[in-house]
Formats: sequence, structure tokens, C-alpha cells
Amino acid sequence: MKFIHEEITIDTSENVELINITHIVNEIVQKNNMVEGLVNISTKHTTTSIIINEDEEGLKNDIINLYGDIINLKHYFHDKIDNNARSHLKSILSSSNQTLPVICGELSLGIWQNIFFAEFDGPRKSRKIIITLIK
Amino acid sequence: MKFIHEEITIDTSENVELINITHIVNEIVQKNNMVEGLVNISTKHTTTSIIINEDEEGLKNDIINLYGDIINLKHYFHDKIDNNARSHLKSILSSSNQTLPVICGELSLGIWQNIFFAEFDGPRKSRKIIITLIK
Amino acid sequence: MKFIHEEITIDTSENVELINITHIVNEIVQKNNMVEGLVNISTKHTTTSIIINEDEEGLKNDIINLYGDIINLKHYFHDKIDNNARSHLKSILSSSNQTLPVICGELSLGIWQNIFFAEFDGPRKSRKIIITLIK
Repeated sequence: MKFIHEEITIDTSENVELINITHIVNEIVQKNNMVEGLVNISTKHTTTSIIINEDEEGLKNDIINLYGDIINLKHYFHDKIDNNARSHLKSILSSSNQTLPVICGELSLGIWQNIFFAEFDGPRKSRKIIITLIK
Repeated sequence: MKFIHEEITIDTSENVELINITHIVNEIVQKNNMVEGLVNISTKHTTTSIIINEDEEGLKNDIINLYGDIINLKHYFHDKIDNNARSHLKSILSSSNQTLPVICGELSLGIWQNIFFAEFDGPRKSRKIIITLIK
Repeated sequence: MKFIHEEITIDTSENVELINITHIVNEIVQKNNMVEGLVNISTKHTTTSIIINEDEEGLKNDIINLYGDIINLKHYFHDKIDNNARSHLKSILSSSNQTLPVICGELSLGIWQNIFFAEFDGPRKSRKIIITLIK
């Protein structure tokens, strides 16, 4: 059994954006000839997250609107330091990492499940995600 | 060290429902003679989740009401495609997977902690959950 | 490859409080000479959680206020049993466990990422967190 870590880098183009990274995770699983194990996907940023759900345009808008709707207070203390409290809070309400099974050489996702990198404070250059395989 | 994957199947009977699966996960740990390691519990659906908390009837109603209360906008784009945007959003606010330690042959849960499969778009037949042991 | 489990105990001093435990997790990684692998951090309580974000005083207040703002209904069923439904619901909206990579002997956290134990029903003595290394 061993560990393989790969860092992927993403440039985002919107302030809030969901980027499907399922194919990138799958390529890393395939090229490392992984058959059985777990994959951990971790963002290195405090204003982003890793989300698993369906890749449908309307739903992606609904997700973005949901976070905007929940985080709607007028005043945040962190805005005095760095004007992005809402971006941090959206990240906190979602998840900075996900851990998923790999079975018979395939990421074990349901038919509608996709892995998204969620940008909440973009656009930004060089967002980093660590993909760790245990196989 | 090795990986064991088991798929469990659940029929749900309500639109929104929390089903305690702790005993099922424990049975899988026991029957595979697992002593030390980690267990990963992953749903394969985008309108369900895996939640850890107390199994008390009133609290389960409170949890269901909480999600209903948060996700209360009139309009969702995804409803034009498949009239279940609220179900997806409830899933996104909770978690599609959980990873927990096993110590000395027991799932390391606190006295009040239970593992629930959360159905947000039921009732449905044959919901799938993958339990992965690394031992 | 092997598993190491360590239990840490924390006394909390506020009703709702974020306690930075990054240095504790790092010390466990270092003293066990961990080079590569994953670390799982799991709380054993249903009114607490493990959160990853920036350690800035204003932001910590914003996070505490966010949960208070979301969970604001007048009536909860669980309050008839044990007057802390809001504490459970705050725990459910965050996460009871996190799994993170260790690369070249270091927890792979971004520059602003810290690991917090979130107390939602304090002050309490002897809150337990299990740190599991797979290395």
C-alpha cells in the first residue's frame, strides 16, 4: 500500500464559480494505475471548497444563490481586515476536503455525482488542490 | 493493510428522513475482523447525505426543519429541469461522506454519536451507500 | 503502513468558541515521525465540530454569528429533552471530522488554513478529539 500526492492548479474566472474537476481526479486515478483505495481531495485555500453534486447549469446557479442568500448580514468584523468575510463563510458552510472510494479502477461516484472546486473569492490565479491516493 | 468495500442498499419511506445506519457500519467492521483503521461512508446520490449526530426523535425533526427553513426561496433554476432543487441544496449543506476511526475493534464514536443516512428526495428504492474499510 | 490513534482532551471556556488545534495536530505528526499519509481529526461530541479556516479574531466572531443567525427559530423539539437543540444544529451545519494530507513530514495546509475545534455547547470539561495517522 502506498500514498501518492498530486497538486493541481486552477485559475478561476468569476467571483463565485463551481468548476467540475471530476475528470482531473479520474485522470490521476487512471495514470497511477489505482485499483482499490481512497482518494482525498483537499483545497489549500480558506475562501474555496470541494463540493460533490450534480453538474447542471441551473443547479450550479441555485448553489451560488443559496450561499449568497444565507450569508446576508450587513456587517462582518473580518471585512475590516480583508474585505472578504462572506467568501470565508461560504467556504465554512461547505467543505475543504472530501474522501471517496476507488473500486475496480474507478472513482466510486453515483451517476449524477461530480466533484467541484468552489471558488468564493475570485477571480484568482493558481488555486491549489491536493489529490492524495492511498492504494 | 488492505481495503474492503461493501455496498449497502436502503429503501426510504419519507420525503425527508434520517435513517440510523450505525449498526450496519458496526456489523461490517465486526464481520471483517477489523481492529484498527479508518471507515469511509459515502453516499452515491446527490439528494442524500451522511450525517453524524444524536438519535433523538425531537432532534431529528429539528434537523429536518432546519434544512427546510434555510432553503426557502420561491424560485430555483434546477426546478425547471427536475423539480428537486431543494433536495440537492439540502444535500450540499450536509456531507456526502464521512471518515471515522476504528480503534480496538470498535467504531470510535462518542456516546451520543450515530451515523445517519439522510434522504432529502424520497421515498426511493435502492439508495446506495459505499462503506470502505482500510485496515 | 500503519495506524496511530491519539486522543486529545480540551476544556472549553465559552458557550461557543473556536479553539485552534493546528499546533497539536502538527506535534502528533512530528513526534510520530510521519512523512507521508493522511491525518483524520474526529470529534466525539454531537455539539462540537472540526472546522478549517483562517485564524483571525474578527472572522472567528463572524463564524460564531453566522451559526447564531442561521439557527434562529423560536421552537425546537429537542429543547424539551435537553435544552441544547441549537448546539446540535450548529454541529450538523459544520463537520464532525476532517481528513488532510501529510506531505514530506508536514500537514499540507495552505498558508491561511488552521484547524479549529468548535465548541457549541460550552463551557465543558474534557472534550475528546481522536487524531488518527495513516502513514
